[in-house]
Amino acid sequence: MTLAKPFLSDNAAAVHPRVWDAMRKADQPDNPYDGDRLSAELDARFTALFGRECAALWVATGTAANCLALGTLVQPHGGVVCHAEAHIEVDEGGAPGFFLHGAKLMLAQGEGAKLTPEAIAAFVDPIRNDVHQVQPHAIAITQASEYGRAYTPGELAALAAFAKDRRLGLHMDGARFANAAAFLGGSAQTAARAASGPVDSLAFGFIKNGGMGAEAVVLFDPERAMDVRYRRKRAGHLQCKGRYLAAQILAMLENDLWLANAAHANAAAQEVAAGCADRLLHPVEANELFVRLTEAERAALRAQDFAFYDWGADSARFVTAWNTRPEDAQALGKAIAAL
Amino acid sequence: MTLAKPFLSDNAAAVHPRVWDAMRKADQPDNPYDGDRLSAELDARFTALFGRECAALWVATGTAANCLALGTLVQPHGGVVCHAEAHIEVDEGGAPGFFLHGAKLMLAQGEGAKLTPEAIAAFVDPIRNDVHQVQPHAIAITQASEYGRAYTPGELAALAAFAKDRRLGLHMDGARFANAAAFLGGSAQTAARAASGPVDSLAFGFIKNGGMGAEAVVLFDPERAMDVRYRRKRAGHLQCKGRYLAAQILAMLENDLWLANAAHANAAAQEVAAGCADRLLHPVEANELFVRLTEAERAALRAQDFAFYDWGADSARFVTAWNTRPEDAQALGKAIAAL
Amino acid sequence: MTLAKPFLSDNAAAVHPRVWDAMRKADQPDNPYDGDRLSAELDARFTALFGRECAALWVATGTAANCLALGTLVQPHGGVVCHAEAHIEVDEGGAPGFFLHGAKLMLAQGEGAKLTPEAIAAFVDPIRNDVHQVQPHAIAITQASEYGRAYTPGELAALAAFAKDRRLGLHMDGARFANAAAFLGGSAQTAARAASGPVDSLAFGFIKNGGMGAEAVVLFDPERAMDVRYRRKRAGHLQCKGRYLAAQILAMLENDLWLANAAHANAAAQEVAAGCADRLLHPVEANELFVRLTEAERAALRAQDFAFYDWGADSARFVTAWNTRPEDAQALGKAIAAL
Amino acid sequence: MTLAKPFLSDNAAAVHPRVWDAMRKADQPDNPYDGDRLSAELDARFTALFGRECAALWVATGTAANCLALGTLVQPHGGVVCHAEAHIEVDEGGAPGFFLHGAKLMLAQGEGAKLTPEAIAAFVDPIRNDVHQVQPHAIAITQASEYGRAYTPGELAALAAFAKDRRLGLHMDGARFANAAAFLGGSAQTAARAASGPVDSLAFGFIKNGGMGAEAVVLFDPERAMDVRYRRKRAGHLQCKGRYLAAQILAMLENDLWLANAAHANAAAQEVAAGCADRLLHPVEANELFVRLTEAERAALRAQDFAFYDWGADSARFVTAWNTRPEDAQALGKAIAAL
Repeated sequence: MTLAKPFLSDNAAAVHPRVWDAMRKADQPDNPYDGDRLSAELDARFTALFGRECAALWVATGTAANCLALGTLVQPHGGVVCHAEAHIEVDEGGAPGFFLHGAKLMLAQGEGAKLTPEAIAAFVDPIRNDVHQVQPHAIAITQASEYGRAYTPGELAALAAFAKDRRLGLHMDGARFANAAAFLGGSAQTAARAASGPVDSLAFGFIKNGGMGAEAVVLFDPERAMDVRYRRKRAGHLQCKGRYLAAQILAMLENDLWLANAAHANAAAQEVAAGCADRLLHPVEANELFVRLTEAERAALRAQDFAFYDWGADSARFVTAWNTRPEDAQALGKAIAAL
Repeated sequence: MTLAKPFLSDNAAAVHPRVWDAMRKADQPDNPYDGDRLSAELDARFTALFGRECAALWVATGTAANCLALGTLVQPHGGVVCHAEAHIEVDEGGAPGFFLHGAKLMLAQGEGAKLTPEAIAAFVDPIRNDVHQVQPHAIAITQASEYGRAYTPGELAALAAFAKDRRLGLHMDGARFANAAAFLGGSAQTAARAASGPVDSLAFGFIKNGGMGAEAVVLFDPERAMDVRYRRKRAGHLQCKGRYLAAQILAMLENDLWLANAAHANAAAQEVAAGCADRLLHPVEANELFVRLTEAERAALRAQDFAFYDWGADSARFVTAWNTRPEDAQALGKAIAAL
Repeated sequence: MTLAKPFLSDNAAAVHPRVWDAMRKADQPDNPYDGDRLSAELDARFTALFGRECAALWVATGTAANCLALGTLVQPHGGVVCHAEAHIEVDEGGAPGFFLHGAKLMLAQGEGAKLTPEAIAAFVDPIRNDVHQVQPHAIAITQASEYGRAYTPGELAALAAFAKDRRLGLHMDGARFANAAAFLGGSAQTAARAASGPVDSLAFGFIKNGGMGAEAVVLFDPERAMDVRYRRKRAGHLQCKGRYLAAQILAMLENDLWLANAAHANAAAQEVAAGCADRLLHPVEANELFVRLTEAERAALRAQDFAFYDWGADSARFVTAWNTRPEDAQALGKAIAAL
Repeated sequence: MTLAKPFLSDNAAAVHPRVWDAMRKADQPDNPYDGDRLSAELDARFTALFGRECAALWVATGTAANCLALGTLVQPHGGVVCHAEAHIEVDEGGAPGFFLHGAKLMLAQGEGAKLTPEAIAAFVDPIRNDVHQVQPHAIAITQASEYGRAYTPGELAALAAFAKDRRLGLHMDGARFANAAAFLGGSAQTAARAASGPVDSLAFGFIKNGGMGAEAVVLFDPERAMDVRYRRKRAGHLQCKGRYLAAQILAMLENDLWLANAAHANAAAQEVAAGCADRLLHPVEANELFVRLTEAERAALRAQDFAFYDWGADSARFVTAWNTRPEDAQALGKAIAAL
């Protein structure tokens, strides 16, 4: 299968050469599991990036990263407020139900798959404070959101204040955290801090951004890390050759590769957006575009060798990646404009 | 840390060059998850190897492989009979309790960490057939066992007949399946079939044998595969760049690399064994040696730069790997003999 | 607290004298758990009532009854389609998440908290048939519904046909099954069969209808009963003096007390309805009334010593019971009419 | 079935008349669930009895009482150290695995099914402090033990000190707590405090001692009670007519009926023991006797209309109850002596 101009997803893109290099360098004897020298660097590296103490653990998938982090914030009899279109609700095969032992996802609404304190309150306030109803224990947001929208530092601060007021944990699904950070701009530190705000935990995604199979669970309350370490093992996610996962993450952090890759993908998305501003369902703030296109128009694009997913009956989703060729992005933008 | 003569474990050994090559070849666009061309080959490849229809799925760890397979054989209110020293009981952080929703591990005894129908019956027969006691649903054995012992085809047939008679599933933890197969001998097909016998499912290990992070869950009742696919996703084990895992496994199968690597490790173990036959706690049938050694003797070996784990107060465990240098194995054998 | 004219709920009503008598008669030595003579009668009694073979088990709460029955129809990685206002979703403290090991409740819509094949299809059809999305395994309906609506035999047949076509189990929460049966009319057999239709399992409620603490889990596929027996024990619901629960249920079945009690409650509800037909939010088909009433009107009723719950800002819920005094029901109807 | 001289178990004995009376008195309108006046008294009544602040909740079975209490002490990835013959391990159908979400029971040894700090240390100390092995989170002991042995205040203090030192919770399964308290002697307060010592939680049994279907979960850290309340609902154990359960417990506490009933049963056991002191497998400290008896001897006793369970091949278990007739106990003692 040749995907000449692939806009299906960033989740199957090739691995970045510097990630490969780092993995190869890790190919020497070291301690198993996370006892190796590379894994030992993670806490310090993420602490430096975010400017506040944290613990960081590798794990092979975003699904596991989110669920392991949420496990520190939610008891089995509690609930997690998330957007009705959140990935953890829609596309993770019920993983939160498994990892959280039957805790409930509570589905709030919000434009662009983003939550606001008001939207959460609208859902949470009617819950009677009695044992017959599941009580919320945490909030989960996605940065960038499932519609490619970025939370601003102000929005995150408001959510965190709300969470604190209601005594709820606040977790961030950062499968495309880098793209949100790149959108918010500034140095790696500035961008990372702006994009994460004061959340309690973050599933920091690298796989969609040039990695192979390593995400970071970042816990800003490091005391919770030990529980996560036990639960990671218990979930079969403690790989014995963990150094290859640590190597991927460190390579992505090195020289801010994570930010550069995301900036590249975002720029490609803007190239496309330039050709279809009037058709966009959502502002383009990361590397995803949701574009109003008829069935015939989609067929016309596919005839030009563009690969992408339908999004409902009248739209399509295009995703750019760290390795999207600028000429492909420009071509796509022009092709849509020419429809 | 330099581990000049490493006998700590095979679980952190380097990745085989042909596995690396296969992973690099997979570094081109393809479908995500297990929709890629490589993952699609697995069922047929394992069916050919074992000579009976099976479904095969990649997963990143043996812990997950065992638990996902057991999930098709055991209901949450049932139990799994395993050896009291089985890895799933002792060293998987309670993963079976998590994946099997609280099903019980039932600990039988047996020499060399091997089970026999008699040993299982001795445990199972006193269980009252009433709802107050957890009923066994399956048996889990380890090939090669936690003490490096191989089940023979005759032993496996007897266990399978017993399991069938009692209506129990039979699962094989094959973290070192290749070493057992190499011990039993013959072509790849002959060895694989002999070592697996008529089990219902097998966690076929590659990581300790030259892989990086891919094991195969092999289900000889392919109808059960769909459940495992859902559960794999639900457990956060469906990696989006799954083709890199499939590539590892296919590389291991190609030209029987899995068997050659295991034969190499087994041969190295025999080199060591030659120097300490009188000190062995268990016959050496795979790539692990359990050797009676005083504290002073162990210190003397470590002073010669041999790395290994203590095994209780009076013994040590040595593990060879696909890349153990013959001269290191010989040196170790001689060093022990010279104590 | 004196509740002179209690319409709060049927769930705390006194216990029927004949239930008391039966419990006292059970106060002699017998086997523990469900090994007693009374428990042994249940299967046959319910088989006779429903006219098809079934197994029946006592359990202390409707929550447990529903969840234990659903456990035979749904795997942990699957889902249960229910109404968004179903009791199992709204008012059981997340019990399905616990008993079903994280299986998902899938919330469909429908007038009067009733489901239809069309409403279920509207929810289920967009679910992609892949491992990323939880697949439905069963449907749960409530008879009478949470708004006191009864499913007709025709509606049940349509749901069962739909369920069969989609290979979904069909469970009925019958917390107020008797009230629905009484509404549908006829002899006990006729009414029970009409109200249950061809469901796979039924949580047959007695507690709201004159019992103390015993509901029946009725499984129309008796082969599934053994699993439920194990799960009942595992959930701590196998009481050692189970004969007192069996006695309650048998007393309710004896001379069709269950139907007579429900008919009484339904008649009382009709008395009330006669006074507020123009204010009803839902047709009154069982023993619950949802009545449009302003805050001032509700205060006026409470000043007359009527006890009931608010239902949102502009309505109230009134529930009649097996022991509602007809004069109280008439008085309530008149009081509302006079507002 | 007539059980003329029943020594099978106390678990199916009739209900005490004063319990019946209390239940009948509760047969008037009140709030559902645990919102009634009787349930509201429990905390204060148990606080007075034990002389330290506690919360107390009714629940229908000892299985649920133990598991709900343990749920406040153990995380899903942890373990509970209990005796290998503990009821929660042997006879609760895997309930701890269900309620504790797969947490592990860790089986220590000890004479008379009693644990000591030394026995626990012998089990716990070899557990490596790493994520590959399940770590203990709590200890569960049974008072009186499964062999009818009572822990003394000194033994309880030693266990509590050990637990505190190791940062483990300490739970007491008190299915026959009253019998242990009666053995230790003194007023109700004195006996209750002596028998409970400084445990963190207690499942205080009433069912085997004259109740019908109500045990108390007593939490000496009342802050944990709210979690238990949520979990009780979630497990389907919040009965809507909870006042009948509260009534049972209050009746048992009233005028120390619980202690008088247990003293009666204990005295009956001593009557039996007087006839078989030389055959006893365990000292008789509560209401259970384990007596060496050949098959022929057991047949001879049964021919005299004594009902009891075999205990292995060469022994029998006899259990007395609150309503054991002294003449039956004497007759049994004499019959054994005459063998």
